[in-house]
Amino acid sequence: VRAHVVGLGLIGSSIALGLSEKGHVVSGEDSDPARARRALEVGAVSSLGGSEDAELAFVATPAASVVPVARRLLESGPDAPVVSDVAGVKRQIASELTAPFFVPGHPMAGSEQEGPDGATGELFLGASWVLTPTKETSEVAFSLVRQAVSDLGAEVVVLSPELHDDLVAVISHVPHLTAATLMAMAASTEVDQESLMRLAAGGFRDMTRIAAGTPGIWPDICADNKEAILAGLDALARELSEIRRIVAEEDRPALTERLEAARSARQNLPARGARPAEVRELRVLVPDRPGVLAEVTSIAGGLGANIYDIEIAHSSEGARGVVVLALSPEAAELLAGKLRDVGFQVGT
Amino acid sequence: VRAHVVGLGLIGSSIALGLSEKGHVVSGEDSDPARARRALEVGAVSSLGGSEDAELAFVATPAASVVPVARRLLESGPDAPVVSDVAGVKRQIASELTAPFFVPGHPMAGSEQEGPDGATGELFLGASWVLTPTKETSEVAFSLVRQAVSDLGAEVVVLSPELHDDLVAVISHVPHLTAATLMAMAASTEVDQESLMRLAAGGFRDMTRIAAGTPGIWPDICADNKEAILAGLDALARELSEIRRIVAEEDRPALTERLEAARSARQNLPARGARPAEVRELRVLVPDRPGVLAEVTSIAGGLGANIYDIEIAHSSEGARGVVVLALSPEAAELLAGKLRDVGFQVGT
Repeated sequence: VRAHVVGLGLIGSSIALGLSEKGHVVSGEDSDPARARRALEVGAVSSLGGSEDAELAFVATPAASVVPVARRLLESGPDAPVVSDVAGVKRQIASELTAPFFVPGHPMAGSEQEGPDGATGELFLGASWVLTPTKETSEVAFSLVRQAVSDLGAEVVVLSPELHDDLVAVISHVPHLTAATLMAMAASTEVDQESLMRLAAGGFRDMTRIAAGTPGIWPDICADNKEAILAGLDALARELSEIRRIVAEEDRPALTERLEAARSARQNLPARGARPAEVRELRVLVPDRPGVLAEVTSIAGGLGANIYDIEIAHSSEGARGVVVLALSPEAAELLAGKLRDVGFQVGT
Repeated sequence: VRAHVVGLGLIGSSIALGLSEKGHVVSGEDSDPARARRALEVGAVSSLGGSEDAELAFVATPAASVVPVARRLLESGPDAPVVSDVAGVKRQIASELTAPFFVPGHPMAGSEQEGPDGATGELFLGASWVLTPTKETSEVAFSLVRQAVSDLGAEVVVLSPELHDDLVAVISHVPHLTAATLMAMAASTEVDQESLMRLAAGGFRDMTRIAAGTPGIWPDICADNKEAILAGLDALARELSEIRRIVAEEDRPALTERLEAARSARQNLPARGARPAEVRELRVLVPDRPGVLAEVTSIAGGLGANIYDIEIAHSSEGARGVVVLALSPEAAELLAGKLRDVGFQVGT
């Protein structure tokens, strides 16, 4: 298709690049002429200008500009394009703008890079991309956007705008604010920072990883999804206050019950992909040098063992690490034996 | 050395196995005769019985039994062994039991396995292992424990018992309770569970990973470190209430300032291992089949490119995944080119 992208930051340029790489013809525009030129230079778009010839347009501007920009595109004449957007909160946008050719969307992918220089056509590979069609949205418009999203390598998830906003408050916005709070608390605690950070091992690092992202979009998100976020923060405060009571009163049965419920829910998080019901972990001690991962994974490949997950736990000494592999129990046993045969230390 | 382990659950059996594998002679005991026999069968210990000949003993019983068991060992006669323990909270134990031959400790490693059958001598590879010697602890006793811990592949961190407890409240106990709470909230929310879990992508999965562990030890931890945990929960409640005000009032500067502070702190978490200051991520689209990781990592090895981190993001379609690699910027550029040459889709 002929596509047009308004707003050539990281997300917009990545959409443009990805569609260009799939053979679509993509034009673009940005309120910042330097950024628009850069998007042209990196090949994200093949021309700058308006949406005249486009069948499909993505609005990837800051959230506050989505409605006026989308409306301008939708009302651009008899050949107006189908329009989608990428804002992280959908209720307000979907209610202000109901039109047969408007398909609100939210790609759940990001990067710590910024602008056209950080763009990559593969940004959305394997990511979920929510589409929240309104009652007005036409089948034809929806199909066109769905196809483009699939071309970008993302998985389409269809939700109502309201449900989307409630879900992301629970699954993304409140956890993000909480992770940032825990991270800031740890950093501002008066105890010895160096020791604290040495003990900040796997669990804490995992938990605060999302706090490493750029704050840029969060003021808009918090304003646009305010009610759902406040409800989520209130629920969290109630639950933490109950946890406080449980700890203060040493209410062991209640604590165990809560942690069991959380454990069971966490284990039921659907594994993305064809991960088998039972998976076993192998821990392989490896020197920290080029080629060692290839040795380990080549041996696995040679045995026909499919690796479902792989992770490197670095030693703080820097000279070695532990590679953690997840495989089926049979493959794990086979691989552990083979790795030991060739001299690796392997834990199961 | 001749070592003895009291309590042959996962941690105790793993210590015994690890020391046995390093050539030490290890005996053991457990109040459950079946578990003790199993530890003997899997080769964790070479004999069952008392600590008569041991120079070094580890107490790996439930936290409540540590003091009486350690005291019994320390008072077992003129040839009493040096004693260490593995309880997750140290203040109480270290104050109740000050003796020249007692070295309180806390290995910061665990597993979702249980008992001797889940034990592995490599459990502690690359983990931090805190030792909290008291004023009474002798140099000789400390050195003996330190050497055994190093033999197990762990990194010794020396802290006072009080500092240890305050640190783990901030870095482990309160985050753990919070992760479990967020997970349970998501699971009990009334919105569509299936959609919720489909959107539960990287950030949420990372954040709740620690909630997947067994609840077994938490009632003891919460009782033994009650004051520090309550102080941490109170601080978290205050901070979240301030975040609530910021969201409710749309106080954008305050929100940005808080998220910036968290981001900067997260980025200053010391990388474990020789991770360079600047790391770039490559995203490689791969089919979900045996051998493909070996292809990718072999190409990296062939280029001399050291992979600092690797992760597999599975597609929910099951037929493909994305391998995320972290490398130095130079190595990333080189590897991306090479992978594209041989037909991989690579994003940077």
